[in-house]
Amino acid sequence: MVQIRRLSSSDIHFQEELAALLQFEDAFDSEIEQTVIRILNQIKTSGDEALLALTRQLDHVNVASIEQLELPHTEWRSTLDALNAEQRTALEQAADRIRTYHEKQLAQSWSYAEADGTRLGQKITALERVGLYVPGGKAAYPSSVLMNAIPARVAGVKELIMVTPTPGGEKNPLVLAAAAICDVDRIFTIGGAQAVAALAYGTSTVPKVDKIVGPGNAYVATAKRHVFGKVGIDMLAGPSEILVICDGKTDPDWIAMDLFSQAEHDEQAQSILLSPDDAFLDAVAASIAKLIDTLPRREVIRASLENRGALIKVRDLQEACAIANQIAPEHLELSVEQPEQWVEHIHHAGAIFLGRYTCEALGDYCAGPNHVLPTSGTARFSSPLGVYDFQKRTSVIQVSASGAAKLGKIAATLAKGEGLEAHARSAALRYQS
Amino acid sequence: MVQIRRLSSSDIHFQEELAALLQFEDAFDSEIEQTVIRILNQIKTSGDEALLALTRQLDHVNVASIEQLELPHTEWRSTLDALNAEQRTALEQAADRIRTYHEKQLAQSWSYAEADGTRLGQKITALERVGLYVPGGKAAYPSSVLMNAIPARVAGVKELIMVTPTPGGEKNPLVLAAAAICDVDRIFTIGGAQAVAALAYGTSTVPKVDKIVGPGNAYVATAKRHVFGKVGIDMLAGPSEILVICDGKTDPDWIAMDLFSQAEHDEQAQSILLSPDDAFLDAVAASIAKLIDTLPRREVIRASLENRGALIKVRDLQEACAIANQIAPEHLELSVEQPEQWVEHIHHAGAIFLGRYTCEALGDYCAGPNHVLPTSGTARFSSPLGVYDFQKRTSVIQVSASGAAKLGKIAATLAKGEGLEAHARSAALRYQS
Repeated sequence: MVQIRRLSSSDIHFQEELAALLQFEDAFDSEIEQTVIRILNQIKTSGDEALLALTRQLDHVNVASIEQLELPHTEWRSTLDALNAEQRTALEQAADRIRTYHEKQLAQSWSYAEADGTRLGQKITALERVGLYVPGGKAAYPSSVLMNAIPARVAGVKELIMVTPTPGGEKNPLVLAAAAICDVDRIFTIGGAQAVAALAYGTSTVPKVDKIVGPGNAYVATAKRHVFGKVGIDMLAGPSEILVICDGKTDPDWIAMDLFSQAEHDEQAQSILLSPDDAFLDAVAASIAKLIDTLPRREVIRASLENRGALIKVRDLQEACAIANQIAPEHLELSVEQPEQWVEHIHHAGAIFLGRYTCEALGDYCAGPNHVLPTSGTARFSSPLGVYDFQKRTSVIQVSASGAAKLGKIAATLAKGEGLEAHARSAALRYQS
Repeated sequence: MVQIRRLSSSDIHFQEELAALLQFEDAFDSEIEQTVIRILNQIKTSGDEALLALTRQLDHVNVASIEQLELPHTEWRSTLDALNAEQRTALEQAADRIRTYHEKQLAQSWSYAEADGTRLGQKITALERVGLYVPGGKAAYPSSVLMNAIPARVAGVKELIMVTPTPGGEKNPLVLAAAAICDVDRIFTIGGAQAVAALAYGTSTVPKVDKIVGPGNAYVATAKRHVFGKVGIDMLAGPSEILVICDGKTDPDWIAMDLFSQAEHDEQAQSILLSPDDAFLDAVAASIAKLIDTLPRREVIRASLENRGALIKVRDLQEACAIANQIAPEHLELSVEQPEQWVEHIHHAGAIFLGRYTCEALGDYCAGPNHVLPTSGTARFSSPLGVYDFQKRTSVIQVSASGAAKLGKIAATLAKGEGLEAHARSAALRYQS
C-alpha cells in the first residue's frame, strides 16, 4: 500500500496543509560548507597538483598524471559509434528536436537612430567558454548533456568544456555518446567541488570558463554558490516536482504513471494531483496501488509519494489554476479537455504540458524545450535554461554632436542634483566647447 | 599633483602589471556576515515588530508605529510638484528616453506547430511584484530609481515596492520625485539588511516580493546574496569602472573629465585610458593636474586615480581592443575616428560609448540604455539590467496523439537508458493504449 495524502481545498485548514506540503528548505550543512571552502582554496592555490590529488583521493581513480584526466576526442567519438542503433537514433532525434526549439530563442543585436543622428542599440555576444558539469555514477544522465550543451552550442559558445567524475574509473558510455553528439570541445574526468573550482579559477590544464552549468550533488551546488560572481552559474536546483491538473477524464493509470515518473527521481521529489472529481482521485489512488509494485524504483516512488505527494480535491478547474499559481510548479500538466483555454490563467510554471497525450516524460527527453527548469516555486521569477543563458548583451551608445548638446544639458542638471560635478562637466564640455 | 600610474603594453611585465591593476576582491567580512544573518532571522521570526525596532535603532528615526514607515502616495506626488522646473523636466525627459529604449527589449511569447499537430512555444510573463532598494544618505541617486523602476514598469510588473532608508528622518526629494515619475506603487522608509529581509520573507505590513533589485552598501549586498534563491536578485555590483580608448585626437580636457567622472564615485572606482599616442597620454596627465583642483570631490578623485587609475600606452587600436576584451570593462569609451569599425572587435563590455561626443555621463542619466551594468569583468558573462530581468519564460508543450507515438518511442528508449522505468512507461502508455 501507498499512504498518499488526500486533501481538499474546501477544508478550512487547506492553506496551512498546502504550505506544509510545499515546505522545503535545503538544510544548510556547515560540514559540507567547510569541506567545499577548503577544496576551493586548494585548487586556487595549487591548481593541477591539488586537482590530481583530490581526484585520486575522492574518486578512487588510479591516474599517473594530470594529462590522463583529459579524455581523448577519439574515445568519446568511438563510444558513439559503438552505441546500438536504437539508442543512437533516439539520442540524435532528441538532439535535433532540442536544437530546433532552442534556435527560436536566439537573440539578435538591434539598434535605432534618432533624428539628430544619435544611435542607440544592443549588441548580442555569445559567452566565450562554458563549463558543463555532468554528474557521474547513478545520476549520470545523457539527456542532461543534451539539455545543457545544445543551448550553449546554439548561442555560439566557442568552447564547451565538460567535466564528469568517473568514480572508480567507471565511464558512462551514453553520457560520452551524448557529448559526441553535442560536439563538446574537451572532457575532463573530474568532479565535485574540485571540478567546479578548476573551471572557475582555471589551472594549467583546465581552462578557466565564463559560466558553469549543469546539475550536481550538495558539494557541487555549494561550490557553484561560492564561485557565483567570479563566474556565471545556472540556477541551483531543488528537488524535482510535478503538478497535474486533471478534469477526471484521463485514464487514471496514465496519471498514476505521470506521478510515478516524477517520484522515481528521488525521495524528495514532489508529485501532486488536483482534480474537481473525487471519484477520479479514488481511481488514481487505486491505480497507484495497483501499479507501484510493477516498477523497479518502487521504494523511491513510495517514499516520495508518502513524504511529499498529495491528491487534492478542488472546487473546479479555475481554482486548480489559482493553486497552481500559488505553487509555481516546475512541471505542470493540464490533462483536461481544451487545455489551451487554461494557459492564460497560468502565471507561474517552469513548463506547461497541455492535453492528455503530453506527459512530462516527453519534455524530459525530446519534445524540444529544455528540461532544466526552475524548482521550489522559483518559477515566480526564473526561467527554463535557454540560449539566453549563453548570450550576453552590451549597450551601444553613439551620440551625435547635436545630440550631445541636448542630452548633455539633461545629464548636467541631473548630475548636479546628485552632487556629481565631474559628471556634469564631462557632459557640459561637449556642448560648451 | 596626482600620481597616476603610467604603463606600456610593450613592457615585458605588462601582463602582470595589468593583472595587479585589475585585482579587486570584495573582502569577506565575517562581522557583516554575522550581523546580516542575525537581522535576517529577526525579520523572519518577528516580522513587523523586528522591522520597527531595527529601523528605530539603526536609522535613528522616531516612529511610533509600523504604519508610519509607509510614505503616503500624496507625499511623493507633492514632492514632484514642488520640484523646480529645470529638474523636473530633466527627470521627465530622462525617464521618457529610458522608457523608449527599454521598450525595444520587451520579449514576446511565441509558438510553432509541427506537421502532426504538436505545438511548442514559450510564454512570457512579467514578474508579479518587485522590490526596489534605493540607498539613503549621500549615495541617494534619483537616476538609480529611473534605471531600476522603468524596465520593471515596461516589463509589466504589477506591483513595484520601493524601500529607502531615511537616516535621522531625512528624505531625499529628488528620489521621491523620481519614484513619482516612475509610478511606483508603495514606498517604505526602511533600509539595510532588514529591508531586504522584509521584502524577501514578507511581514504583515511589507509584502513579499519575487525579486529585489537596486544598489546598496555591504549589508544590503550581503543580505541579497543570502536571500538569493528564495527570491531573485540582480547582480551584486563591485566598484564602477571606465576604460577609455583614444586615438589621441580628442581634447585631452574632455578625456581627463571623463576619467574624473568615474573616479568621483568612490575611492575604489577605476579609470583607465589606453592610447597609442604617448604625447596624448602626457597631455591628459597635464589636463588631470590642471583640472583636478577645480572639482568639489577632488580628494575622492585623487585617491581613486592614484589607487586604481592608469594611463596606458598601447601599440595600436587593435591592441587596445584586445586589452579591452581582457578587462571586460563596465563602461568603454571609443573616443576615436570612425568608432563603428571597432565595435565588432569588442566582445566583452557592459556598455560601449562611441565617438568623441559620447561621454559616459550621458549614459549614466539620459541616453536611454541602463546604467546598471556588469562590473569587475563580469561583462564576460552578464548583461546590463533590462526588461528581460523582469520577465520570465514558461515552456509550453502540446503533443498530438500521433506526436505522442513518435516522441514516446524516443523518450522511452532514452528513459530506459537512464534506468527511469516510470518515465518510459508514462510515455509508452500514450502510444500503446
